Amino acid sequence: MTSSEQLQPSVPNLLSVTPSAAKLSLFRNLMGEVGLDAYWIPSTDEHLNEYLPLARERRAWLTDFHGSAGELLISQEQCWLFVDSRYHEQAERDVDQSLFQVVKLGLPGHKTPIATLTELGDGAMAQHRPFCLGFDPFTLTVGQWRKFKEELGWIGIDLVPTPQNLVDTLRLHSPYAEIDPIPPIGTSPLITLPTSITGLTIGEKLDRVREMLRHHRTDVLPITKLDHVAWLFNLRGQDIPYNPVFWAYGVVTMENAYLFTNLERIDGEVKQGLTPTVTLYPYEDYQSKLPALVHSHNGSSCSRVLLDIHRTTMGTYELLMNAHGKLVEVDSPVEILKAQKSAVELERMAWANLKASRAKTLTLKWLETTITHQIPVTEVDVARQIEKLYGEVEGFQGLSFNTIAGAGTNSSIVHYGTPNPNQLLEPSQFLLLDSGAQYWGGTTDDTRTIIVGDPTPEQRHRYTSVLKAHINCAMQHFPQGTTGHQLDGIARWSLWQSHLEYGHGTGHGVGAFLNVHEGPNGISKRSNGELKPGMVTSIEPGYYQPGWGGIRLENLYVVVDQTSNYQPTVHGEGVNDTEPHWYGFAPLTYIPFDNHLIDFDQLDHRQLEWLNAYYQSVIEQLRPELTPEELGWLRQTCQNGMPVTSS
Amino acid sequence: MTSSEQLQPSVPNLLSVTPSAAKLSLFRNLMGEVGLDAYWIPSTDEHLNEYLPLARERRAWLTDFHGSAGELLISQEQCWLFVDSRYHEQAERDVDQSLFQVVKLGLPGHKTPIATLTELGDGAMAQHRPFCLGFDPFTLTVGQWRKFKEELGWIGIDLVPTPQNLVDTLRLHSPYAEIDPIPPIGTSPLITLPTSITGLTIGEKLDRVREMLRHHRTDVLPITKLDHVAWLFNLRGQDIPYNPVFWAYGVVTMENAYLFTNLERIDGEVKQGLTPTVTLYPYEDYQSKLPALVHSHNGSSCSRVLLDIHRTTMGTYELLMNAHGKLVEVDSPVEILKAQKSAVELERMAWANLKASRAKTLTLKWLETTITHQIPVTEVDVARQIEKLYGEVEGFQGLSFNTIAGAGTNSSIVHYGTPNPNQLLEPSQFLLLDSGAQYWGGTTDDTRTIIVGDPTPEQRHRYTSVLKAHINCAMQHFPQGTTGHQLDGIARWSLWQSHLEYGHGTGHGVGAFLNVHEGPNGISKRSNGELKPGMVTSIEPGYYQPGWGGIRLENLYVVVDQTSNYQPTVHGEGVNDTEPHWYGFAPLTYIPFDNHLIDFDQLDHRQLEWLNAYYQSVIEQLRPELTPEELGWLRQTCQNGMPVTSS
Repeated sequence: MTSSEQLQPSVPNLLSVTPSAAKLSLFRNLMGEVGLDAYWIPSTDEHLNEYLPLARERRAWLTDFHGSAGELLISQEQCWLFVDSRYHEQAERDVDQSLFQVVKLGLPGHKTPIATLTELGDGAMAQHRPFCLGFDPFTLTVGQWRKFKEELGWIGIDLVPTPQNLVDTLRLHSPYAEIDPIPPIGTSPLITLPTSITGLTIGEKLDRVREMLRHHRTDVLPITKLDHVAWLFNLRGQDIPYNPVFWAYGVVTMENAYLFTNLERIDGEVKQGLTPTVTLYPYEDYQSKLPALVHSHNGSSCSRVLLDIHRTTMGTYELLMNAHGKLVEVDSPVEILKAQKSAVELERMAWANLKASRAKTLTLKWLETTITHQIPVTEVDVARQIEKLYGEVEGFQGLSFNTIAGAGTNSSIVHYGTPNPNQLLEPSQFLLLDSGAQYWGGTTDDTRTIIVGDPTPEQRHRYTSVLKAHINCAMQHFPQGTTGHQLDGIARWSLWQSHLEYGHGTGHGVGAFLNVHEGPNGISKRSNGELKPGMVTSIEPGYYQPGWGGIRLENLYVVVDQTSNYQPTVHGEGVNDTEPHWYGFAPLTYIPFDNHLIDFDQLDHRQLEWLNAYYQSVIEQLRPELTPEELGWLRQTCQNGMPVTSS
Repeated sequence: MTSSEQLQPSVPNLLSVTPSAAKLSLFRNLMGEVGLDAYWIPSTDEHLNEYLPLARERRAWLTDFHGSAGELLISQEQCWLFVDSRYHEQAERDVDQSLFQVVKLGLPGHKTPIATLTELGDGAMAQHRPFCLGFDPFTLTVGQWRKFKEELGWIGIDLVPTPQNLVDTLRLHSPYAEIDPIPPIGTSPLITLPTSITGLTIGEKLDRVREMLRHHRTDVLPITKLDHVAWLFNLRGQDIPYNPVFWAYGVVTMENAYLFTNLERIDGEVKQGLTPTVTLYPYEDYQSKLPALVHSHNGSSCSRVLLDIHRTTMGTYELLMNAHGKLVEVDSPVEILKAQKSAVELERMAWANLKASRAKTLTLKWLETTITHQIPVTEVDVARQIEKLYGEVEGFQGLSFNTIAGAGTNSSIVHYGTPNPNQLLEPSQFLLLDSGAQYWGGTTDDTRTIIVGDPTPEQRHRYTSVLKAHINCAMQHFPQGTTGHQLDGIARWSLWQSHLEYGHGTGHGVGAFLNVHEGPNGISKRSNGELKPGMVTSIEPGYYQPGWGGIRLENLYVVVDQTSNYQPTVHGEGVNDTEPHWYGFAPLTYIPFDNHLIDFDQLDHRQLEWLNAYYQSVIEQLRPELTPEELGWLRQTCQNGMPVTSS
C-alpha cells in the first residue's frame, strides 16, 4: 500500500463515530487486508523503552489510555486492554469501554493475554484453521517471542510479523497522515560527556566490551537499548521524556564501533569527539548495515553475534538470521559493565543526589512552614516547589520522572500519575513525595512521606514499620554472590511479622545520568542478579491501604565493599576457599525522615544507631549547601523526639 | 558388538595394569570404535536419582571415587573428574591421579566442564573437524542437554547419543561380564500403602493429575522420577538405598495409567490393589509402549504430551520425538501435587518425626551420661546409638540417609560421609549429629550439635548465632507467594551482620515416606518456587570453619496457614485485591538444643519467646514417649540456663 492511497473506510462516514471507533474500524480493515485475525500491541517500542516518545505511543493513540504500562489485543470482533492493578481505575476512566474491554490483570475472572489468545486459538482449531496473530517484531524481545511461541504455538496460533507496525501503517495514511501525523523522533541535539564525567573514554569502554566478546568467542554485538548506546559512546540527548538518551542503534565489532542515528542533529564538535573510534551512519541504515557487518565476518574462523535475548527485539533477530549469523545468547556486556559505576560516575552520582537531597529537604522545610501557617497547599504546589528547587542548581538537566505528590488517600496509589491542582493537603493526612532529577553526570530518585499536622498512633506505627524495613535492608552486610531476592526478604521480614506487605519491588538500579530505572540489578522476588560494588540501587519499602493512605521511604545507595572493616573473615565450607568479600550499602541520599511519625520505642538499638549515624551524615553532607537558618532548622528537625543514646 | 565377543585389548596385558587403567584403556577402545572423541558420564541414572543403585554407579566403578556427586569426562588423551568443594580432598584420596585429573570446581585455575569442552572444541575446529562428545541420553535431562547444546554447539561439539551407556557396554563384555557383572536392579518386593497412610487413593490422585493435564490441554504424562511413581501409585519398594522407592516408569493418559516395572517382584495382593486403575507392563516395555501411547492419540483433535524438561531425560524425549508427540513444557503435575501433603500424610510425618525426635533426644541423654562418666565414645558409637533407637519403633523402615556423626574438626565437613570408628569425642569439641529415618508413612531428618564438656566463649557465640538464624526463619510469617530465596535471606541476615555464612542451602523439601530431599520447594538463593501450606521443609543454617569445627541446627517444619490468627489483614496496593493469606512454620521436630552452648543474652525477646514456646512443645510432645526418668532429664535439660521470663 503506497502512502498516496486513500484508505477505504468500511464505515459509511468516519465523522459519525468517535475518533477511537474510526481508528479501530480502519485498523480492522488493514488487519483483514493482510490476512490477520488479530494484532498484538505491547507498551514498548523498537528500543524497548520504558518511557516512550510520542511517536511510539501507539496504544495510547488508539485507546486514549496513557498509563506507562498496558497491552492491547485487537481481533475483528473484540478488543482487550490488559492493565495491571496500578491502572485498573485509570484505564476504565480513559477508554471507551464499548470499544475496549479493560482486563484488570490479577483479579479473578480477568484472563491474561495468553489465556485470551489460547481461547481464540481453540476456537480457530475447532474450525480447522490457524489463527493468525500479527505483531511488529520490533516490539517484542526475542525472549518474549519465544515465550509466546511456546505458550501459543501448539494451540494453532501463528505469530505473523508485519513488515511495518500496523498502527503506524494506519497513521501514515489518510486521513491521519494529514490530521494527526506521527511526530518526528530523534531530533534533539547530542552532547558529549567528557571523561571528567564518565571516568572512561569510549576507547576504554570498547576495550572492556571487546574483552567480554572475546570471552564468549563472539565478535559482533548489536545494541538496541538507548541507555546502552548513550553509555558506550559517552553521549546524551533528549529524544525520550525524562531519560537523557537518544534514538539510535549501536553495533560493536572487534575492529570497529558503529552508531546509527539521525546525523543532522550532530554538530561538528560531537562528530570530532567520536571519530575515528566510532563510524557514524544514518539511523535508517541499521537494517541494511547490520547484516552486512555479520556477513563480512563469515568465511573467517569465528563469526558470531552476542545476542541478549531480553534486550534485543525480534526485528534485529530476523536481520541476524537472514545474515546467517551464529548466535551466542548471553547478557549484553554493556548491561553488565554499565551497572558497576566508575569512581568518577559515583562521584557525580554523589554530587547530584546531594543536590537533590537539598531540594527535597528544603521542600520539607517549606511544607512545614506553609502547614504551620495554615497556608493552603495543593499537590501541584508541592510538585512545583521541589521542581523549582531542583532547577536552582547549575547542571540541572530536567526531571528523571514525573513527580509523584500524593496527598491524603492519593498517597496510597503507588504510581500516582499526575499531581492534582485541586487536591489540598489535609490535616492528619499523609503527603507522599517521590521525585528525582537529572543533573550533569548524575540521576536522582528519592521519596519522603510526611504527616500534615498530628499523626494518629496507627499512622506512626505503620510509618515506623516501613522505616524499620528500610533500615534493616540499608544496614545489612552481605557476602559477595548475594542476590536481589535474598535482600528482598531481608527488607520485608519485619513488616511481614505484622502481616503488612507492599506490592512492588524493594529496589531498582539507577543509571549515572541515564535511566532512573536501570538493570540488571534489583531488589525484588524476581531479581536473581548479584549485587556488586559500584552498583546503585534504591531501597524503597512502603505500605499502602486504599482509603487510608500510603507510605514510602526511599533512598539511593551504592554497594560498597566492607571487607577491610573487619577482622579476617571466616567462611563456610562449600564457599570458595578464597575468602569471600563482604558488601554493604552507603547512602547517596541525605534527607531527614519525619520524626513526628517515628515511634522510637519500636526501633531496636541497632536501628537507632543507624538512624543516629544517618542523621549525622545528613547534617554534615548538607551543611555546605544550606544557609545558617536552614541548617538550624535541619538540626532541630533531626533532633526532634530522638532518644538520647549512650555513646 | 554381541555379548559373546571378547573385547580386543589395546594394551598387551590387562593384568599388568591397575583395574582402573584397564577399564579406561578398554573404554577408550570402545569410544574409538564408535567414532567418539570423548564421553560424558554424569552422576545420575535414567531416573535422575540422587542416590544410585550399585548397578548405576558408573563413575564410581571406573574411578573408585564414591562421593554422591562428581562428573567424569573421558577423552582419548585425558580424563577429568569434576568435583565440588565437598569432595575436593576425598576425590584426591580415592582416585589414581595419574589416570584421572581431579578438577576442584570453584578454585581458581580449575576449569568447569563447559570450559574444558570448549577448549577441546576449539582444538578440533582448528583442525576443521567436529568434536564428537558421546553421552547416554538417559543420563541427561532435557534441560541439561539444551544447555550443553547452547553452550557447546557453536564451538563445533556434536552431542552424540549412544544407544547404550558406554560404561555398561564395557561392563557387559568380557572380562567384566564374568568377573564384575552389573548387579541386578529392581528386585525388591513392592508394598501397597493404604489410604490410612496416603490420604488419597490412586484414583483420586489420577483425577487431580488429569485435571492439571486438562488445564494444559495435554493428555499424556510420562513419569521418570521414582518418587513420583511411588507417590502416584501408592507403592513403596527398596530398590534404592535410603529412599523407599522402586525402579519403574509411569505414564498417565486421560483414560489409563501405566506402570512399567519388574513384574516378578509384585505379589498378587499388590497387583489386585492396582487393577483395573493401573495397567502393568514389564519395565523393558517402556521404550516401545510410550511411543505407542502417544501415537494412539494422534489423529484426534488433541494429542499432547506434558513434558517436565528438568525431570525427564533426553532418552524419553527422543522416544516422544520419534512418535511425533506435541510437547507442552511445564512442571510435572506430580511434582506439584506431591509437595503439598494431605492431612493424613502430615499426620504420618508428625508421628514419624516425633519418634525420630525421641530417638535423637535420648541419644543426647546417652551422650551426656557417657561424657559425664568419661566413657570413650567414637563417631561410630554415636551413629549406632541413634540407629538403635530409631529401630526400636515399630514401623521403622530404615535410615533416610547415611548418618553424619562428626566429632571435633570432622564437624566442619558439611557432607561428612562415614562415621569414623577411631574418632573419639574430645573435650571442648563439637559433635554434629545429622540423621534421619524412614517410618511407615513418614520421613525424618534433623541435626543437633552438642559440646563435649565446657564450651569456649567463641563456640557459644557462634552456636547462638546459628540458633538465632534458625529461629529467625522458623518464626517468620510470610504472605502467600513468598519464594524460597526470599526466606533464605531472612535466615542468613543475622549471621551476615557478623560476617558469618554457610555454604549450603537453608532448607530442602522432604517427602512423606519418600525421598529425604524432595522438590520443588526449597529455601536457598536458587529456590524460586513458592512455599505453600502442606509443604514440608527443613530449616538448617550452620557455620563451619575447617580446623575449628562446625555447627548445624536442623528441624523439619510444615508450612501452615496463619491467616485466621490475625485481624483482617491489610494489603499493599499492587497485590491481588482479595486478601492474601499469611503463612508460617509449624515444627515437626521436637528435640532440645544444647543450652550450654546458648548465650541467652544474644537472643532478643521474640527469639527467647519462640524458644520457650518450642521447649514447652518439646516436653508436651515427647512426654508420652518417655519414661518418668527420661522426662525428668528432658525438663532439666530444657530449663538449664534459661532466663526467667515475665509471662
